[in-house]
Amino acid sequence: MTPTPPPLRLSELHGSLTDPVLDAMNFLNEVVGRFPEAISFAPGRPTEGDFEPEDLARHLATYTRYLEEERGWSRDRIRTQLFQYGRTNGIIHELIARTVAHDEGIEVPPEAVVVTTGCQEGMLLTLRALFARPEDTLLVSSPCYVGITGAARLLGIRVRPVPEGPDGPDPEAVRAAAQAARAAGERPRAFYVVPDFANPTGTSMTTADRERLLDVAAAEDLLILEDDPYGFFVRTGEARPTLKALDRERRVVHLGSFAKTALPGARVGYVLADQEVLGEDGRRSLLADELSKIKSMTTVNTSAVSQAVIGGLLVEAGCRLREANAGTIAYYRTAMDTLLGELERHFPADRRAELGISWNRPDGGFFVVVTVPFAADHKALELSARAYGVLWTPMQDFHLDGGGTHQLRLSCSAQTPERITEGMARLAAFVTDQLEARP
Amino acid sequence: MTPTPPPLRLSELHGSLTDPVLDAMNFLNEVVGRFPEAISFAPGRPTEGDFEPEDLARHLATYTRYLEEERGWSRDRIRTQLFQYGRTNGIIHELIARTVAHDEGIEVPPEAVVVTTGCQEGMLLTLRALFARPEDTLLVSSPCYVGITGAARLLGIRVRPVPEGPDGPDPEAVRAAAQAARAAGERPRAFYVVPDFANPTGTSMTTADRERLLDVAAAEDLLILEDDPYGFFVRTGEARPTLKALDRERRVVHLGSFAKTALPGARVGYVLADQEVLGEDGRRSLLADELSKIKSMTTVNTSAVSQAVIGGLLVEAGCRLREANAGTIAYYRTAMDTLLGELERHFPADRRAELGISWNRPDGGFFVVVTVPFAADHKALELSARAYGVLWTPMQDFHLDGGGTHQLRLSCSAQTPERITEGMARLAAFVTDQLEARP
Repeated sequence: MTPTPPPLRLSELHGSLTDPVLDAMNFLNEVVGRFPEAISFAPGRPTEGDFEPEDLARHLATYTRYLEEERGWSRDRIRTQLFQYGRTNGIIHELIARTVAHDEGIEVPPEAVVVTTGCQEGMLLTLRALFARPEDTLLVSSPCYVGITGAARLLGIRVRPVPEGPDGPDPEAVRAAAQAARAAGERPRAFYVVPDFANPTGTSMTTADRERLLDVAAAEDLLILEDDPYGFFVRTGEARPTLKALDRERRVVHLGSFAKTALPGARVGYVLADQEVLGEDGRRSLLADELSKIKSMTTVNTSAVSQAVIGGLLVEAGCRLREANAGTIAYYRTAMDTLLGELERHFPADRRAELGISWNRPDGGFFVVVTVPFAADHKALELSARAYGVLWTPMQDFHLDGGGTHQLRLSCSAQTPERITEGMARLAAFVTDQLEARP
Repeated sequence: MTPTPPPLRLSELHGSLTDPVLDAMNFLNEVVGRFPEAISFAPGRPTEGDFEPEDLARHLATYTRYLEEERGWSRDRIRTQLFQYGRTNGIIHELIARTVAHDEGIEVPPEAVVVTTGCQEGMLLTLRALFARPEDTLLVSSPCYVGITGAARLLGIRVRPVPEGPDGPDPEAVRAAAQAARAAGERPRAFYVVPDFANPTGTSMTTADRERLLDVAAAEDLLILEDDPYGFFVRTGEARPTLKALDRERRVVHLGSFAKTALPGARVGYVLADQEVLGEDGRRSLLADELSKIKSMTTVNTSAVSQAVIGGLLVEAGCRLREANAGTIAYYRTAMDTLLGELERHFPADRRAELGISWNRPDGGFFVVVTVPFAADHKALELSARAYGVLWTPMQDFHLDGGGTHQLRLSCSAQTPERITEGMARLAAFVTDQLEARP
């Protein structure tokens, strides 16, 4: 007779598992799964473009050929590289250093590159290394990507929101938040920001604000954690320099990702961590070296197979990923132009003023925020999915301080122009009905 | 003019970075790197066998063919599976469930399988989910694999050692440790153990002790974290059942790895977590579902490319990895037989009694422990590497409580019989000289 096993109690497990942010993400995934026929503007999934499964084998072959022909490696050494445990900070660090130099004008030595299992592991490693004491505080641009607040929650790190304006975070608000933290007995250590086409707001920092943010970081002794997954995808105007490209004091730890510029399925990201670290004994290392110690306790290595795939892709692109992404950049430009055009068509200026509807017009990226005069909550999403066949993300789920209740995020990244047009018609019907149903 | 950037201070970074265990590991890596010509019995690297880089493309093709032909997937769906973000707990969970059923007689539903970025991520996820309060304590078999103590250190989890005997941990010692923890106001949550051919000691638990350990776990309300990377590699006698195969109360969370049975470079491991979890609202989930919430904040997904490689390998093996590993099992058997035979040849019974040297004779796995009448510390290792050209691992680095000062770990996994023979001659010369040099 098998005894009935006693269940574990959720309330006895780690608090992150019942965190509202994680709960909200689970709800969203569940809704998306429950309405597979709906047109989804919810997840920030990248387009698959002309990817074919056979590309993976080609990239692997390109990478091994590169090792053999360009680097002069023996077959035995290549075999070991792909098969074995390897260098904790990765095997394609040189290719990545060359790529960010070409694409972003970022100059870091290959030793400052940590190849990670997606950008998410990069956040986890960086937070774990930098946050040491109970009083250490992370400042985050809010509303905020849940990956960073979730990682902070796993590690028990306190987070202070810095409200975003229409041009992203205001450097003076960052200064004020750092000073408020210090006044409360905290030690503000770093500020997390997505300077280009932020998730979820779509806003971007001006170049002048980027310079000012670096000045504030120096004055307040903060590090900047710069997350830049969307920077290539400019819709209007010119690409702006990353914070890391402007960084003269090594204040910026740059979190990079190949999820949107290559393929998310490989799970390869990177951290550029060229900060110098001084030991008690006077020994000097790079922050990247310290991150490798943490990485040996999270994933040991980033998959050599995945690194070889991304490595081959970089070699094929001549370590110029921006050029290789020209088609993808055009794709997202058309997608967001279509989405904004359709919103305009359904809600022309006079009508939207009357109805109390508005939206921003991001310069690029995946995300647009629509403000509506009703609660855009989980209940509204459920109705939108069931009765109108259109999915979006409630902005309130990204707010740390109770905002965003009347806003929704639209992601244009995963739909064709035709589906966007149809989806915006459905959204317009949903919004209009909601307004008419108001008391 | 570029201002001199202020360095970060190591003392201001997280305490894990200056932990003696991590420091010891760095020292070892550094020594191995400094003496590339030495014969190394230090790392537990698996043999590369007949692996060829081209195998990766074959496994990818096998996996996509399996999806197409056996599962009836469309080409579009396969493309999305390989390219996109996907199911957090992985895409080869069904193949893994089938494999552990064949190989270990472990019956768990595929939904209880969490596919992880190596076994190390499995440890991190499991520890984070289970350890919630400051008083929660992890019991570990000691001397202990540094992966588990390192992960605990990152998360600030207290560890209590349970000393190992010649047959691994004594279940009564586990009970005593749990009771001592409780008496000290702690809440013992789980016990970590490698029941087969443990790293670093090479010891194995008897089947009777495994049953007794499960009884202790039930009586003391402990979970067992079973880590089993070496179980296939039997040298003498029969393979014993895993704790998970004997588990009737779902007390065992099984941490699995393909690093030794397939290839470490893919970084694919898994957690079998079929424990039921009861929410405040009466909702029930599996522990695997809770682990997925954590995983979404560590790596989001395990590389789809890596999973496809391991998936193809499992399909090719008919989900019977033990049979597919017959050659590897024989390889390690010969390696350890050779190592033990050479030790015997250099130090026959009468001579070793006189000299005060001894070693254990593990039933399988990679590791043998040699006890010597001098300090087998970092200084001795440095001398052994420089003057004798042979590397090993000081056992003291695996002890949480100051033991192992006169023991060294030999790993036979990465050397041919010829190199083992030569390496043991060098080790014998080193040991003999050390004894003669004693005052």
